[in-house]
Amino acid sequence: MKPVRLALLGCGTVGTEVVRLLHEQAADLAARIGAPLELAGIAVRRMGRDRGPLPVNPELFTTDPLSLIKRDDVDVVVEMVGGIEPARGWLVEALRSGKSVVTANKALLAEDGAALHDAAVEGRADLYYEAAVAGAIPLLRPLRESLHGDTVTQVTGIVNGTTNYILSAMDATGAGFAEALDQATELGYAEADPTADVEGFDAAAKAAILASLAFHTRVTAADVHREGITEVTAADVASARAMGCTIKLLCIASRGPDSTGADSVSVRVHPAMIPLSHPLARVGDAFNAVFVEAVAAGQLMFYGRGAGGAPTASAVLGDLVTVARNRLVGVRAASESAYAALPIRPMGEARTRYHISLDVADRPGVLAAVAGVFAGHDVSIATVRQGPAGGTDRPVGRGGDAVLVIVTHEATDAALAATVEDLRRLDIVRSIASVLRVEGGDR
Amino acid sequence: MKPVRLALLGCGTVGTEVVRLLHEQAADLAARIGAPLELAGIAVRRMGRDRGPLPVNPELFTTDPLSLIKRDDVDVVVEMVGGIEPARGWLVEALRSGKSVVTANKALLAEDGAALHDAAVEGRADLYYEAAVAGAIPLLRPLRESLHGDTVTQVTGIVNGTTNYILSAMDATGAGFAEALDQATELGYAEADPTADVEGFDAAAKAAILASLAFHTRVTAADVHREGITEVTAADVASARAMGCTIKLLCIASRGPDSTGADSVSVRVHPAMIPLSHPLARVGDAFNAVFVEAVAAGQLMFYGRGAGGAPTASAVLGDLVTVARNRLVGVRAASESAYAALPIRPMGEARTRYHISLDVADRPGVLAAVAGVFAGHDVSIATVRQGPAGGTDRPVGRGGDAVLVIVTHEATDAALAATVEDLRRLDIVRSIASVLRVEGGDR
Repeated sequence: MKPVRLALLGCGTVGTEVVRLLHEQAADLAARIGAPLELAGIAVRRMGRDRGPLPVNPELFTTDPLSLIKRDDVDVVVEMVGGIEPARGWLVEALRSGKSVVTANKALLAEDGAALHDAAVEGRADLYYEAAVAGAIPLLRPLRESLHGDTVTQVTGIVNGTTNYILSAMDATGAGFAEALDQATELGYAEADPTADVEGFDAAAKAAILASLAFHTRVTAADVHREGITEVTAADVASARAMGCTIKLLCIASRGPDSTGADSVSVRVHPAMIPLSHPLARVGDAFNAVFVEAVAAGQLMFYGRGAGGAPTASAVLGDLVTVARNRLVGVRAASESAYAALPIRPMGEARTRYHISLDVADRPGVLAAVAGVFAGHDVSIATVRQGPAGGTDRPVGRGGDAVLVIVTHEATDAALAATVEDLRRLDIVRSIASVLRVEGGDR
Repeated sequence: MKPVRLALLGCGTVGTEVVRLLHEQAADLAARIGAPLELAGIAVRRMGRDRGPLPVNPELFTTDPLSLIKRDDVDVVVEMVGGIEPARGWLVEALRSGKSVVTANKALLAEDGAALHDAAVEGRADLYYEAAVAGAIPLLRPLRESLHGDTVTQVTGIVNGTTNYILSAMDATGAGFAEALDQATELGYAEADPTADVEGFDAAAKAAILASLAFHTRVTAADVHREGITEVTAADVASARAMGCTIKLLCIASRGPDSTGADSVSVRVHPAMIPLSHPLARVGDAFNAVFVEAVAAGQLMFYGRGAGGAPTASAVLGDLVTVARNRLVGVRAASESAYAALPIRPMGEARTRYHISLDVADRPGVLAAVAGVFAGHDVSIATVRQGPAGGTDRPVGRGGDAVLVIVTHEATDAALAATVEDLRRLDIVRSIASVLRVEGGDR
């Protein structure tokens, strides 16, 4: 049987694992596909780098990816380099010329997935990217295929392992953000420059990809409201605990009516409190999990390893088996489903609950004044706790005389922002210690 | 665009929901498929039955399924009748004549999936059955496609909602099996004849389907070791609690060496204790969850509703979108992957830990005698608890003088069975109150 020939772009952690598994599982993969997979070449930036003992002919390595992609004997291009350019140019070239693409490049898909999808249609080629979101968890294919008979209403996920490790550590040890980040860096859970993770850029890219698939609508990273975890304090984590909650960096993509009643999509990434009873609360360390709600299916959850060489390689190889099978029978998978083309709902219209911690003067009338501000913006208060600064079992002020912890019922982000703005102007409010969204409760 | 025309076999809880969703979501389904879905006919056993207000032409109903299947204008057959015959004959006829089949018939797939897969190859037709296992949870497609680049080593699942509801109730309320079953029946979680659920037949059928997909091997219900939950007592549940465990009816399909070192498959369904820290322990009520372990992906979990009209219909419609798309482009999905054809490992070779509760005479030498029996069969003891009958915080005997609770390290089922047999013969052992497997711990 004529082999299906692969060009690998990139040979780092994931790439070396893909090479290793292609070798170790060659017989099984051939049996599942109906033809062997064969490496045509591996494009790398530098030739000399030590990649450990790899079971491949060293002559397969090249520093010229474009020539490799253009070779007639290449059927499938596997991209594991990441970043927008030059990856975009390579993949568009491959797809337009009819070569199938398997990629883990979430940044590119979130920035300009349209360019890739359009090129795939033009070249009648397959584009698969299971490894781009939540590593080994089979998640995109269920969204892309299994749930296509249903209407997905919300996707709520923990999709960044680094921030989940940091927040889990803060919850377990009481450490602050900086200390927990240092520990994560030391253990290899955070990169030397952790910006993409801790500022939520990585999660936002994944949120855009998930929302696009779930809602049949092109959503880009620019459409995602993004807040990172650098401002989350040990006091916030303690407050969450006191409420029976924990803090997670969530990506939340939801479909629903906007202020005019029109169907629309809202996508956001931010830290939020969730009740310990919620399945996502128990997702610890560097694991990922995604909670999907659909009209007929109800609640679904997918859980597993979101990163690492072997888990990511598992997703890449699963896609490879599919595109190789498709090539053998001369078909391509269904194109991107973006027919719904729903508008993006502004963040101000997102509805959720809020946990607000205020340092206030300890004198009569304070609670009435604060409550009045909430009422003025139509934000309904669910619970209030008040205590002296420095109390032990009670909320602790930061130099103020007393502390007020308020949890609201569901309100729009705009109403909440306006409330906070007005609270800041009250002279009895010394400072606003924290404002955190509360998700995953009963609504 | 020419519509894809469907024949529905059966119009009960799931069927009516499928009809309703086909109507409500018609425009979305057409956009996702590229052509509308159209009902050609609905075969039912009795014409007059009240099915509520269904958005279909009453003339679509027929009591002659075979004629409906054979009609030239039928492209896809959706079977929601269940049972071995006459469903097998219908589906084989449909597939052989090139009609795609979507079915939720786990019993037939587990009994004689081979007949269906062979007919699908013969007729070059698609056979999809996501709804047959774990209802709405996209599980079979991930196993069938996403994980095809990986090696699955174990699938551990809670796949029967009725028994999970009963065991959850026993755990929460301290009720016995009969009482919890009555409650489940009253609330509609158990059928009038609960045998298929409580004796594990339903779970065993699903285990066979999961094992077939996970291990690329034809596994039938007859290959599955099956024990139900009717013997689980309130005392067992209390013992589990005392160990930090809960009792679940698990289906466990694993791949590994048999006694000769050859690669083989073991599939079993039985109640087992699992630690409360295990993700499956928290799957309550009628929910389903399946834990998958693969060499590269590591641990994955899939969670959601395992039954009910709407969740099952979601899975049926997801399959329908896929087979309809395939028909439009004139292709079929990859055939059944059964190339590995691994042998079934006998239950006696299954290795796990055990929790054994004995009523014994309260006199010197008893523990030594009992421990000697375990040692004689090479079964290593991990922990022993001993107490007088009727103690409160301690294990309680059932009319004996004392009670011994022993937890073993991992041992084969054969060694454990022989140990229990010999214990029964000891005159100091008044009775063996319970023998339960312990799963999901560190090994």
